[in-house]
Amino acid sequence: MGALPQLFAVALLLIHSNLAQASSTPSDCGGSQVCRKTEPYKTASLTPAERANDLLKRLTWEEKIGQMGGIRAAFRSINGSVAFNRTSFEQIRSTQNGQIGYGQQANWAMDLLPRMNELRAEQINGSRLHIPYITVADSVNGLWFSGGTVFPGTISMASSWNLPLYEQVIAASRDENLAMGINWVLSPEVDIIHDPRNGRNGEMYGEDTYLVGEFGTRYIKTMQEKDDNGFVKVATTIKHFVFGSGSGGVNRASMFGGINHILNDLAPPYRKAIREGQPLSLMASYSSIDGVPASINKYLLQDVLRGILGFKGLIMSDANAIQYLLTESKVARTRSDAAVKSLQAGLEHELKPDGLGLFVELRSLHSNKEIASLVDEAVRAMLQIKFATGMFDQPLPTIENMAATLRNPRHLLLNRNITRESIVLLKNDDAFLPLTKGLLSGSGKVAVIGPYADLINAGNYAPVDPADPRYGNSFLRSFENALGKENVLYAQGTSTVLPNYDHDAQAKDQAAISFAVDKAKQAGLAVVVLGSGYGNFMPEFFNNERTDTEGYSHADLGFPGAQQQLLDAILNTGVPTILVMSAGQTFVINQSTSRCKAILHSWLAGEYSGDSLVEILLGQVNPSGKLTVSIPDHNGAFPVAYDYLPSDDVGGFSTYTKYDWHWPQLTRKPAMPFGYGLSYTNFTISEVSVSTSGTGSNRTIDVSAKVTNRGKMGGKEVVQVYFRPQYSIIERPVMKLIRFSKVSVAVGSMEIVEFDRIALTELGFYVNGEWTVEEGNYTFWVGSSSRSSDLTPVNVVI
Amino acid sequence: MGALPQLFAVALLLIHSNLAQASSTPSDCGGSQVCRKTEPYKTASLTPAERANDLLKRLTWEEKIGQMGGIRAAFRSINGSVAFNRTSFEQIRSTQNGQIGYGQQANWAMDLLPRMNELRAEQINGSRLHIPYITVADSVNGLWFSGGTVFPGTISMASSWNLPLYEQVIAASRDENLAMGINWVLSPEVDIIHDPRNGRNGEMYGEDTYLVGEFGTRYIKTMQEKDDNGFVKVATTIKHFVFGSGSGGVNRASMFGGINHILNDLAPPYRKAIREGQPLSLMASYSSIDGVPASINKYLLQDVLRGILGFKGLIMSDANAIQYLLTESKVARTRSDAAVKSLQAGLEHELKPDGLGLFVELRSLHSNKEIASLVDEAVRAMLQIKFATGMFDQPLPTIENMAATLRNPRHLLLNRNITRESIVLLKNDDAFLPLTKGLLSGSGKVAVIGPYADLINAGNYAPVDPADPRYGNSFLRSFENALGKENVLYAQGTSTVLPNYDHDAQAKDQAAISFAVDKAKQAGLAVVVLGSGYGNFMPEFFNNERTDTEGYSHADLGFPGAQQQLLDAILNTGVPTILVMSAGQTFVINQSTSRCKAILHSWLAGEYSGDSLVEILLGQVNPSGKLTVSIPDHNGAFPVAYDYLPSDDVGGFSTYTKYDWHWPQLTRKPAMPFGYGLSYTNFTISEVSVSTSGTGSNRTIDVSAKVTNRGKMGGKEVVQVYFRPQYSIIERPVMKLIRFSKVSVAVGSMEIVEFDRIALTELGFYVNGEWTVEEGNYTFWVGSSSRSSDLTPVNVVI
Repeated sequence: MGALPQLFAVALLLIHSNLAQASSTPSDCGGSQVCRKTEPYKTASLTPAERANDLLKRLTWEEKIGQMGGIRAAFRSINGSVAFNRTSFEQIRSTQNGQIGYGQQANWAMDLLPRMNELRAEQINGSRLHIPYITVADSVNGLWFSGGTVFPGTISMASSWNLPLYEQVIAASRDENLAMGINWVLSPEVDIIHDPRNGRNGEMYGEDTYLVGEFGTRYIKTMQEKDDNGFVKVATTIKHFVFGSGSGGVNRASMFGGINHILNDLAPPYRKAIREGQPLSLMASYSSIDGVPASINKYLLQDVLRGILGFKGLIMSDANAIQYLLTESKVARTRSDAAVKSLQAGLEHELKPDGLGLFVELRSLHSNKEIASLVDEAVRAMLQIKFATGMFDQPLPTIENMAATLRNPRHLLLNRNITRESIVLLKNDDAFLPLTKGLLSGSGKVAVIGPYADLINAGNYAPVDPADPRYGNSFLRSFENALGKENVLYAQGTSTVLPNYDHDAQAKDQAAISFAVDKAKQAGLAVVVLGSGYGNFMPEFFNNERTDTEGYSHADLGFPGAQQQLLDAILNTGVPTILVMSAGQTFVINQSTSRCKAILHSWLAGEYSGDSLVEILLGQVNPSGKLTVSIPDHNGAFPVAYDYLPSDDVGGFSTYTKYDWHWPQLTRKPAMPFGYGLSYTNFTISEVSVSTSGTGSNRTIDVSAKVTNRGKMGGKEVVQVYFRPQYSIIERPVMKLIRFSKVSVAVGSMEIVEFDRIALTELGFYVNGEWTVEEGNYTFWVGSSSRSSDLTPVNVVI
Repeated sequence: MGALPQLFAVALLLIHSNLAQASSTPSDCGGSQVCRKTEPYKTASLTPAERANDLLKRLTWEEKIGQMGGIRAAFRSINGSVAFNRTSFEQIRSTQNGQIGYGQQANWAMDLLPRMNELRAEQINGSRLHIPYITVADSVNGLWFSGGTVFPGTISMASSWNLPLYEQVIAASRDENLAMGINWVLSPEVDIIHDPRNGRNGEMYGEDTYLVGEFGTRYIKTMQEKDDNGFVKVATTIKHFVFGSGSGGVNRASMFGGINHILNDLAPPYRKAIREGQPLSLMASYSSIDGVPASINKYLLQDVLRGILGFKGLIMSDANAIQYLLTESKVARTRSDAAVKSLQAGLEHELKPDGLGLFVELRSLHSNKEIASLVDEAVRAMLQIKFATGMFDQPLPTIENMAATLRNPRHLLLNRNITRESIVLLKNDDAFLPLTKGLLSGSGKVAVIGPYADLINAGNYAPVDPADPRYGNSFLRSFENALGKENVLYAQGTSTVLPNYDHDAQAKDQAAISFAVDKAKQAGLAVVVLGSGYGNFMPEFFNNERTDTEGYSHADLGFPGAQQQLLDAILNTGVPTILVMSAGQTFVINQSTSRCKAILHSWLAGEYSGDSLVEILLGQVNPSGKLTVSIPDHNGAFPVAYDYLPSDDVGGFSTYTKYDWHWPQLTRKPAMPFGYGLSYTNFTISEVSVSTSGTGSNRTIDVSAKVTNRGKMGGKEVVQVYFRPQYSIIERPVMKLIRFSKVSVAVGSMEIVEFDRIALTELGFYVNGEWTVEEGNYTFWVGSSSRSSDLTPVNVVI
């Protein structure tokens, strides 16, 4: 226990609103019972808007500005213990006290909750109107800090293409957050993966706007589910408005504008989420768009977001984004200028990782009526979220509930299940997998090789020390558990990331690679685990040379360091080799890599990544993941997404072309396409039907198909529906996903998959901000991936 | 002579206008002298606009549509001879007869002119109103077909940074075109090099809008210079409005929109050229911009081009672009729909390489008043160009003038001079170059190695058979001429382009590389010439696997095929090695390449590329070229242009960074920056002064600096001035070029370089279409490249 033990016991006995009422002082309303009863903001039966309006009127100017910021990281982690600095805490709290965050990932939940409850109680007791904080946290793999279930990263979960399962996982994640008193998360990230170099792609769902919109909307609906008292469980933050193609794949870099691009290529997940999920908040992106940083881009935040897309919630800045207006973009002259410009553009809350925020500068601008009015709007939005989530009415979270909720067995099972479905089998020559007893019986041994074999690579936002067994089994450990330690010959082969130009390291690598080659030959079968990654609180683990993570862009789409060299050395022995990729990114699949008997991508799977991989390798689980991003065939061969514009693929003169694979010219033919992924069984999709019914704008489209399992193992197939108008007033992609469904089909059995009543309006797109639907000839495709050989086309007139 | 000998003698005796008048038939005006004299369009003293207005009234609907197209390629080349197909010619001419083009590059000027004159005379005699064609040609390296001076490609000439010399070269190119009766060229291409993968970059000037605008405007002014009779010598076509970053570096691919991006990042050369050069025509790009193909992008062609930028000339399509609306972009339902939409958007002339154009469909739309009015505008624009260039008044070109003009000794000397200045010395360890007698005296021999050593690589638009000595000396031949054949040991080493995945070819390469290694060891000194390229009429020469050229995009920024392997093999011997790059692109300069003692880039130099390289290697010429494009340090590390936005370079967390060179994250630090290039002498730039004078919007900035030659050889230095506002309302680049000047400085001497009266308005930029100039703090830099260590900063308040 730290500096605040005396408050702890008190806090746990009270609920927020009781505390607030109990501590009302006579100065508030003369101490009369009547007064306390009639304060509308304390009346839970009123709407959040009504309560917020009432409370807003009672706030001083400084209290209002206080609500527009918060304390991003209440606690630090020093030598494995929770640390708290009262001085710096108070410095921030005195001017920024709307929300609070837990801080570093290395801390453990059981150490954090009692201390956070102390701070919460202190704020309720110690502030003039007893306004509670709301606790805000990142939530990608579940809890931001240690001690919860470590779910897979976003790209992993999306690779399952299993929306109902995803909802269950998010419900578990929500309940773990809620158990820690986290009522507001900084997810979902619905940015579209447009550039394979972006180190943050693993935090995103994929390259397709429909798929991202489906997952993002489910996330919001599940998090924001209402409890029995009608309170939103956990408010969400849809982000980053708007991002998808920062220059060079750099996270904070500039983006091109163009209203059709923004609305059709980036905004569709927002459109769906705003209409169907109503996220309570939204985060503006770091990027400047057409030269105007999102934080001061009034056109983008007002005309596009509020106007065209209809967003009604709170708009917050990304961390430090207001400051960057001054220090990086140089579009503000002073801190105050940056604060005013971003407020005027539409920012209502500032996220600041440390130190004083820039909205604090607004304290001196009370007399400016425009600013006063904008501040009222901003604070009203904040208070509404607090009332909606029951901050004034619900009890503080208890240790008992935390203990019962975090790592609940049901959560762990859900985690296993989604991990199993998130691994994608990309290649499986001659049904090399699953490994049969026969294959293993040569020497009876398997060589496990590669720098990613003995760690957990769950992503930048996962609270995981990659080498600490408390966070789960590495693949190596899982395989040893399954086969017996004596049957697994391990060689790291090279370090996680090692620059080729370090000559000493190169020599060390050569020795390590030779050692690995020996192991492979000895075993007669090799599983090589390569990748790229980053553990947020273990940068030194990755030799300070990260390729994945926020803020990093990898120019090279190959494996970092000497990993390809290691793989080639193993393949050159002729030993049958299985490649497992581990990363939040795709890696080029080239002619050399293609010599592997089998290739799997395990993305940024969580604590069960090792176990699930072993289950798949041994045939205990039939893989069912599918790519949500296309994999290029060459370094530099991007953009590679399946939904390119038709004029993007007309580079060459076919008469001069000798190969199907046009290496020297960029083609849009990826090594592995969006939607692709293999199973151990054989599915056929047949009896594809597309029909229309209804009239006028009420017309709908029905799509159905039959999925038959003609193989020898039960499994799951993802049926995908794509479409394209054969004429449109502006260029439209060569195909767009419009529905998908994952179905389980028993051996020798079949299932009918039906997508009923797809509304005509769903075929539309924006032209200069107007939603437009074309009539005429359309092509629909139904099949198991976006590759034309996996699809059945149907032409219809609509 | 072909099908039309009988017309030839007649045609040469007549000038266009005389012929037209002499052949006026009584049906035109009853045969009266008065009538002939008073037809205003025949009166040379009237303005082109007046004459065009008069003639327009006299045209039938079909004659009008005829002027909106032409015959792109009158002649073919079959087995080295000019071929003419009367049937297909007449099929096109009957509906498209505004302009005519010569056709294939392999034909020779002396064979072409008489035959073209026959067709010209035939059209004048045979058409109802005796309206001549105007002859249109591409002109990048000079004449489009064989027989003229083969100047360097655009990127080469820009690398000279020598505007006065460039003007002289363009004047020579103009006179050679004019001698062939070419009065209209499809240049300059002022597209900005934004993506190093684009196979067309060699046709462009560089990555900087100011530099491109300067060269492009000089091109226009020189080409459109008026003759003694007041006629424009050669009309120009500024293009491609607007292009610069087609998706994936693909020429015809889609681009992002955003009005600030278009106006600030792409349009500045148009702005300057339209204001100062007044190009008579402009070509719309192939690209769709924000989803709307340029050919139907009314906003782009009307609001932006005509409105904001003030363009008044004729707008033409790119070749086949109207057809692609139907077949590729699918934004038109029929040929007629494509023609109407592009006409309505602003296209006035159709470029069609073969077959019937789509504007022909307008023939059936006479009764549509809107279309009739737009057609009148289009035809008026075409006729004005014909009157402005004297098509109705000037004689047909003569054989005598052609013989005296093409390859005139003065042209050849200019060609040598600009080639000498266009080669860039990128690296020169320990003053390894120039090669002294001592260095050559080891074995007395030099090994010349590489697939680009024995060919001329002048670019896609150059009429050059790369291996035919009639088109100039290869580097190998020039070096043999200089040193004696017996002193040059040649090994091709590998083919021009050979995919790594062809195993037979790989084996062949290994043998060829071993052979080259032996030659290098034998000589003790190696010059390795590597590159990428394409000769337009010799595709088979490049193994059908081109990387440079229109329509091609190279995903890989390394040398194609086994060339890097060849270079590494040579470097591994320890033999001192000079690398010469030959291409219209940049190649990654990596740790391996950096082992070369010296590196030069010769770009797409013309017929004197070999001679000039030898002169530089031997110290007879002091290199003075500078990069107009930045060279990346890693495959995939782009965009790399020096004028990035400040927020584009904030990817990483410096506390975790061990190296200056952040390999895993994309930084904007190129291997070699824009403006960079070495000399054999040492220049210092000192006494930098930046001052302002005047008041209000009349304020101007004066910049001056002293250049001193402290070395042992006379030479030329390019003084460059950059600037940046320290605050602006939208994000502006970290620096922008605003002036440059190339000065010649004798040994031990100095020159003062002054840039006087830079207008305040030149510091401006567009914000949502409005020209904006910031007041306040500015930084100016003066120096020899865009690299900060080569620059002196000066802060001024404006």
